[in-house]
Amino acid sequence: MPDDRSATLFDRTLRNLRRAWTDLSDTTRHYISGQPRPGLPDEDLARVRGEIEACVVGRGDEASVRARAAALGQLYMGLDAVGRQRFLAVLASEFGVERETVDAAIQGVQEADDEARASAEARLREALEPRWRALLGRFTTLPDGVKFLVDLRAEMLMMAREDKTIKALSDDLRTMLGAWFDIGLLDLRQIDWESPAALLEKLIAYESVHAIKSWDDLKNRLDSDRRCFGFFHPNMPNEPLIFVEVALVNGMSGSVDDLLDEAAPEIDPRTADTAIFYSISNAQRGLGGISFGNFLIKRVVELLSHDFPNLKTFATLSPIPGFARWLDGQLKDEQAVLLSSADRKALTALGEGANDGALLSNLLGRINDPSDEALADPALVDALKSPMMKLAARYVLIAKGRGGRALDPVAHFHLTNGARAERLNWMGDRSERGFDQSHGLMINYLYRLSEIEANSTAYVTDHGIAESTAMRALARG
Amino acid sequence: MPDDRSATLFDRTLRNLRRAWTDLSDTTRHYISGQPRPGLPDEDLARVRGEIEACVVGRGDEASVRARAAALGQLYMGLDAVGRQRFLAVLASEFGVERETVDAAIQGVQEADDEARASAEARLREALEPRWRALLGRFTTLPDGVKFLVDLRAEMLMMAREDKTIKALSDDLRTMLGAWFDIGLLDLRQIDWESPAALLEKLIAYESVHAIKSWDDLKNRLDSDRRCFGFFHPNMPNEPLIFVEVALVNGMSGSVDDLLDEAAPEIDPRTADTAIFYSISNAQRGLGGISFGNFLIKRVVELLSHDFPNLKTFATLSPIPGFARWLDGQLKDEQAVLLSSADRKALTALGEGANDGALLSNLLGRINDPSDEALADPALVDALKSPMMKLAARYVLIAKGRGGRALDPVAHFHLTNGARAERLNWMGDRSERGFDQSHGLMINYLYRLSEIEANSTAYVTDHGIAESTAMRALARG
Amino acid sequence: MPDDRSATLFDRTLRNLRRAWTDLSDTTRHYISGQPRPGLPDEDLARVRGEIEACVVGRGDEASVRARAAALGQLYMGLDAVGRQRFLAVLASEFGVERETVDAAIQGVQEADDEARASAEARLREALEPRWRALLGRFTTLPDGVKFLVDLRAEMLMMAREDKTIKALSDDLRTMLGAWFDIGLLDLRQIDWESPAALLEKLIAYESVHAIKSWDDLKNRLDSDRRCFGFFHPNMPNEPLIFVEVALVNGMSGSVDDLLDEAAPEIDPRTADTAIFYSISNAQRGLGGISFGNFLIKRVVELLSHDFPNLKTFATLSPIPGFARWLDGQLKDEQAVLLSSADRKALTALGEGANDGALLSNLLGRINDPSDEALADPALVDALKSPMMKLAARYVLIAKGRGGRALDPVAHFHLTNGARAERLNWMGDRSERGFDQSHGLMINYLYRLSEIEANSTAYVTDHGIAESTAMRALARG
Amino acid sequence: MPDDRSATLFDRTLRNLRRAWTDLSDTTRHYISGQPRPGLPDEDLARVRGEIEACVVGRGDEASVRARAAALGQLYMGLDAVGRQRFLAVLASEFGVERETVDAAIQGVQEADDEARASAEARLREALEPRWRALLGRFTTLPDGVKFLVDLRAEMLMMAREDKTIKALSDDLRTMLGAWFDIGLLDLRQIDWESPAALLEKLIAYESVHAIKSWDDLKNRLDSDRRCFGFFHPNMPNEPLIFVEVALVNGMSGSVDDLLDEAAPEIDPRTADTAIFYSISNAQRGLGGISFGNFLIKRVVELLSHDFPNLKTFATLSPIPGFARWLDGQLKDEQAVLLSSADRKALTALGEGANDGALLSNLLGRINDPSDEALADPALVDALKSPMMKLAARYVLIAKGRGGRALDPVAHFHLTNGARAERLNWMGDRSERGFDQSHGLMINYLYRLSEIEANSTAYVTDHGIAESTAMRALARG
Repeated sequence: MPDDRSATLFDRTLRNLRRAWTDLSDTTRHYISGQPRPGLPDEDLARVRGEIEACVVGRGDEASVRARAAALGQLYMGLDAVGRQRFLAVLASEFGVERETVDAAIQGVQEADDEARASAEARLREALEPRWRALLGRFTTLPDGVKFLVDLRAEMLMMAREDKTIKALSDDLRTMLGAWFDIGLLDLRQIDWESPAALLEKLIAYESVHAIKSWDDLKNRLDSDRRCFGFFHPNMPNEPLIFVEVALVNGMSGSVDDLLDEAAPEIDPRTADTAIFYSISNAQRGLGGISFGNFLIKRVVELLSHDFPNLKTFATLSPIPGFARWLDGQLKDEQAVLLSSADRKALTALGEGANDGALLSNLLGRINDPSDEALADPALVDALKSPMMKLAARYVLIAKGRGGRALDPVAHFHLTNGARAERLNWMGDRSERGFDQSHGLMINYLYRLSEIEANSTAYVTDHGIAESTAMRALARG
Repeated sequence: MPDDRSATLFDRTLRNLRRAWTDLSDTTRHYISGQPRPGLPDEDLARVRGEIEACVVGRGDEASVRARAAALGQLYMGLDAVGRQRFLAVLASEFGVERETVDAAIQGVQEADDEARASAEARLREALEPRWRALLGRFTTLPDGVKFLVDLRAEMLMMAREDKTIKALSDDLRTMLGAWFDIGLLDLRQIDWESPAALLEKLIAYESVHAIKSWDDLKNRLDSDRRCFGFFHPNMPNEPLIFVEVALVNGMSGSVDDLLDEAAPEIDPRTADTAIFYSISNAQRGLGGISFGNFLIKRVVELLSHDFPNLKTFATLSPIPGFARWLDGQLKDEQAVLLSSADRKALTALGEGANDGALLSNLLGRINDPSDEALADPALVDALKSPMMKLAARYVLIAKGRGGRALDPVAHFHLTNGARAERLNWMGDRSERGFDQSHGLMINYLYRLSEIEANSTAYVTDHGIAESTAMRALARG
Repeated sequence: MPDDRSATLFDRTLRNLRRAWTDLSDTTRHYISGQPRPGLPDEDLARVRGEIEACVVGRGDEASVRARAAALGQLYMGLDAVGRQRFLAVLASEFGVERETVDAAIQGVQEADDEARASAEARLREALEPRWRALLGRFTTLPDGVKFLVDLRAEMLMMAREDKTIKALSDDLRTMLGAWFDIGLLDLRQIDWESPAALLEKLIAYESVHAIKSWDDLKNRLDSDRRCFGFFHPNMPNEPLIFVEVALVNGMSGSVDDLLDEAAPEIDPRTADTAIFYSISNAQRGLGGISFGNFLIKRVVELLSHDFPNLKTFATLSPIPGFARWLDGQLKDEQAVLLSSADRKALTALGEGANDGALLSNLLGRINDPSDEALADPALVDALKSPMMKLAARYVLIAKGRGGRALDPVAHFHLTNGARAERLNWMGDRSERGFDQSHGLMINYLYRLSEIEANSTAYVTDHGIAESTAMRALARG
Repeated sequence: MPDDRSATLFDRTLRNLRRAWTDLSDTTRHYISGQPRPGLPDEDLARVRGEIEACVVGRGDEASVRARAAALGQLYMGLDAVGRQRFLAVLASEFGVERETVDAAIQGVQEADDEARASAEARLREALEPRWRALLGRFTTLPDGVKFLVDLRAEMLMMAREDKTIKALSDDLRTMLGAWFDIGLLDLRQIDWESPAALLEKLIAYESVHAIKSWDDLKNRLDSDRRCFGFFHPNMPNEPLIFVEVALVNGMSGSVDDLLDEAAPEIDPRTADTAIFYSISNAQRGLGGISFGNFLIKRVVELLSHDFPNLKTFATLSPIPGFARWLDGQLKDEQAVLLSSADRKALTALGEGANDGALLSNLLGRINDPSDEALADPALVDALKSPMMKLAARYVLIAKGRGGRALDPVAHFHLTNGARAERLNWMGDRSERGFDQSHGLMINYLYRLSEIEANSTAYVTDHGIAESTAMRALARG
């Protein structure tokens, strides 16, 4: 479920949804005799179990079964955290696949001759369909039912950390959602100041890279030299699934603070030569594990190329979210190979014992603090910048994570998409978070249409990273 | 694929689609070196096989793989009937599930303990996913790609009659389409004279119950005392999936000829007490096996109830498409139990040896032919009407088909949905087809919201048929 | 009012409009006690006069007065031709300006000193406002009231031919309509096969240059290599005010028959170098005297230039509607200066006494008639073509009408707009009308953006005509 | 022009408008050689005068003249306050009607016989059309040109206070705007949280009764139990002309503070029995003198009645903006007849010399100030409330302004529309403005559909005021 910031949004959704589902109540009310207690004690659970069974079996015409599902949905919304967990646990453990049916179907496959094999496999496939799909699948026909399923999955994801049974349920719901949220069924829509306020407030709630501080901040991001695009599902018209914010500028931007400065003058977008993707946010936790970002970037590049023929460069201005933590580890680890003893010494000296990231970060912070005169020292900055840039380049280009992929998650995302690690930017993000995560550094990933396929293939196949000469030089340092 | 009547429509779709896909050609052209020969001889097939493999494996970034799929789609459209069959046969036989993977996964399930069982089943489910999905699934992201898949399935259905391999492919594509065409993702839209001509011409092409003869005929069916609704998929905005035509009238209509009479005066729809559903057509052959009709009727009843509070009765005016053939069989079958010897005799006498449907039909036709004076004989009509009505009632209420369900397919559809067999109508459809199929008889099925669930449950569970007193009396005769 | 072809359209409009206005009847019914007799005899007229007076005086709140206007509108629609004329005659003669008020205001102006002059003039302006505006103006707030006023004006125009009083009313309504139909308030919209059928049937009804024969003909004119644009008023969304049909082609078209050939292949519009405006129709007779055509052409040229950068040439393919009649006059007039005696002789010889247009037209017709072998004679055609082309060039470039403007009305229209007379086309329109009006000849007017202003100014100021070298040479002959 | 709060909005409009108009610059740039100096000294004015003349005369085709108008519009926007005044003064004094033409046309009318009179009047009408219309009227065809004219009129209104010449220009522009903003051409649209942010920010800027403090405040006013409607012109889609805010409640609200309380719970609007119109704001100063409010209320009442059949009561909750000032005058005026000496004594005693509104208001303020314990005295409140309510009733029902109409402007507005003065509310508006203007009192005006016409007629004809028994009793005191 969405975090605190969007709590009121979700409350509102829920309230509207309840009202809409209650409108089906002439037919639904009689299914469940009285709302169960919030914690769903055993006695009440038994009744609910029966109701789930009735819905899964699907007696009666389709419209009546839909009404049953609505009643169960309303019931669920009336439960507290404990009750919901109990509800889902029952669904997960008692309404999965039927073991006997599966075993029989397996036997069928094993005994089938070549000709009969295909249909035996089809029967096995069917036997492996969990029974809960008959309940969950019905919610799509309810008002806002798709959004309900997405938020339900978000709730499952949280519970699944502790309850393995629910994980299988959550994974299967992801599969179901994956079909309904097929990329081909989504709309790519521009979001601007003409968009409904009901949609724009979602951007404020969901922006996860550089928080939107106010409606004025938002308006600045939707100005005539900015573009914002999102993927939308037809059943959730005011709910972006993912959205990207783009600035149309001249030259490759190195500082997000400049981009977000509300006082900065607008430029005529038709004169811009560069499109900077400075924020990409996934908006729906319940769709975790279903990927949209790759497609989004390509589609937006296509659209912008068409609308602004002057654009020559498409690049991101991205955070390096794991850099500070990694550097901290390196400093602590005497054996760290990516940190030369000279660098270690330089940094330690500067930080007066800055052997951890916090101190170093503090040091960097003070450099940029106009009130901290002692450190407003160009010589000091120079001394610091050089090792830090080298280390960041090493982090992005050399540090490896699971299975040999780039350790930094943002790097991994853009490299998979075929981008090239292009340029590091000193003091590109002076926000608190910027200092905490990456000591203020940012990076540009460059998308060149002609190289995307080769870059992506190389990275996916062999973890070969496309890099600019400058980046490579920095890393070699 | 659509029949002859819509051939030009489909040609146009295809032409636009080719043009759109060619626009992706900067990236696609190099994938396939030269269009293969239409019949796809072995040599060319080998190259195509390689290209399918590349697409299924999915190397490169997502956008590049999509371009590969577009190239394959264009290639397919350039083939002749033989070439297409060969293409699909290869896809079906070589890009299904991998037997070894399945076998290994089966073993995994069999060896799993209780705790590991769920994830072993999940792996087996995955192993059972045919590889062709990686190709077919990518078409959704192409312009009009969803419509392409629907029409491709229609083509598969035809081929599958003779080629069992293709049947498995066709069935699996139905499963995929089933997820994308989930009823909850569809729009119910009213179709009227304000609708785009590009949509309205589809009604003319797809109407399958009472053919639309001209744009004037169509306009008459969209008049202010008529309503037409269809289900639409967001990716196919001008393609109805199914549509229903409704007349707002006073009293339950018994003659479709009256309803379709362009010269008949309009009534003020707000004064109507009855909504007559006189035509329901499935529009997309490629979606065969995915059911929408049930939901459509309920939703339209809800909408009309809301817009026209005066409406008291919701009923169909339906054909009885299998009646003439069944009666023919009964007349030929000396042992037929539903045909009393008195009836047999009466009919035979009338038809001067009318022991087959054709003669009888001819007789009925002549009765209604003003130029055939000899037969414009009320006595004769009376003599004929009584046994015919009895037999039709028996056909609908008593004759059983596969698994005990009603023999008549239209009856089976409405009974499943919870309707009641309400009234037979003598000479309700005097069109050629009307005489051919049901000797001019029609029937009303009545939808009463309060009874739908019970009726449907009874029919689905025990094949118990809801019937009016009058119908029952007729059948008992 | 529209002509016969659109009679049913208008009937439908009227029927809907009556129904809508009757919905205001809770408040309206009591205003007028009983519908007057259709012919509006004196007795009934007296009652109506009182009702008009009440509406013009405008007692009660605005909404109530609107309801009175609705009641009067319904009453009007219930009258026959005689009754309507009587109604309008009363409105025109008794609800114009008040002479005393005007005279007093004139005196006020005459007596005003310099300082007071402006406000005295303002009072006079007010005094000159006819009282009927208080009634007519209220119709805009009724459903479809603006369309009602437009059609009412069409009716006035017909009556005004015989009834001078009504002419003043008609002229003043044109002034009112002129303000509401200010060009800046109109929408320029593309019309295509996606447009509502309710709009497309209007094209069929209103096309006045090359009649649309069927829905298939219409569809052909809206194909992917065609464009159709119209001006629309926000209150009449499905009623074009004027529309233009454009073909995207290569090279300047010389034959409308080729353009309208449904069997001709489509071309990819992005490859076209020329846009041919082959039909412009004013759709609303009631807006006669308010000009839209000039603006329409410029705006469409701008739009097409933007969408299809390959377009180099914008030209019309126009009829020469007055040519045949003019030539007929020339042949009959022994003194005709534009017809040399050599040409006269040549044509007369050919026509075997063809001294009138009918015979000549017949001759031209036979030339193109494959069954009339005697005349399928290239030599004859050659002999005919040369003098005909010369005479047509003279007709367009030299023949003068009222006030020195071009005699041909279509020529006058395009020359006023800044076009250049570019090319005559032999046998460009072989339809019956084409032969009747212009012996099958057509003409291209060329719109060059860089020359429009100068051409237009020259023509409007001095009747100087922009012409191609070829046209000039032809005319000099 | 808009006030300070919306200054940035207007700047933005202007900036976009300049950009759009500059896009016409290929054709416009050559008209005016260089932008004149901001203050428009005589020398520059002479050039501008020539350009205006060229535009008014209208040489060249329509599109070219439009481009000239655009150039003049851009020029105007580049001037400072002095330059703009000089520009408009020239337009007003030199491009009005031509005296000789008018005099000649007057003579024509005076000499016309009965038959010729109508056409002579038509010529005089034409002669009285100021020449500036030929310039101003052309702006409608420019992007946002209608909005430009509206804002230009706002500017004229300010200047006209000091410059009488400009007043005639301003009045004539109102006439022109009056035709384009004919009520029948406007859209009534609901505004809600789904509306574009670009529109919603206008509500914040334009709300003139109860200021909108933040986006949260705005959202609260657009909640599910609120409605907001505005009139819009097709050429200004995001600019409301006037808008009304409505609360759906149970029982007639007496306190706007309660309505605007963001913490108050929403109710299900379908259960509400009363619609309270608590704010009506005119949004466009430039449309001053053109009335929309009357129609808006009636239309909204119709819409709400249709959507919420449970609604029984439609009433306003209105300020009494002139009450405090009037009471102040009464207290100062020894002869004031509506203030009895007893009331005067009571109030004076309470206010410890409260013989002016400020002190009294202060007193009222303190009563409601929780920190001012001395005055939190029910007895005091009681003593105050009774004379205040009586006086307010007298102010509304008895105090007369110009020509006998109600002195209070809000009262005059609603009484003209046919409402009834229904109920006074003690402490209905505790905002600073509420205390300043009306000592915290508010009033409900009741709209009963069945009485509107009679009430309005009575008030407009004889200034008879519809009042509740309670109000009458209060006033009699």
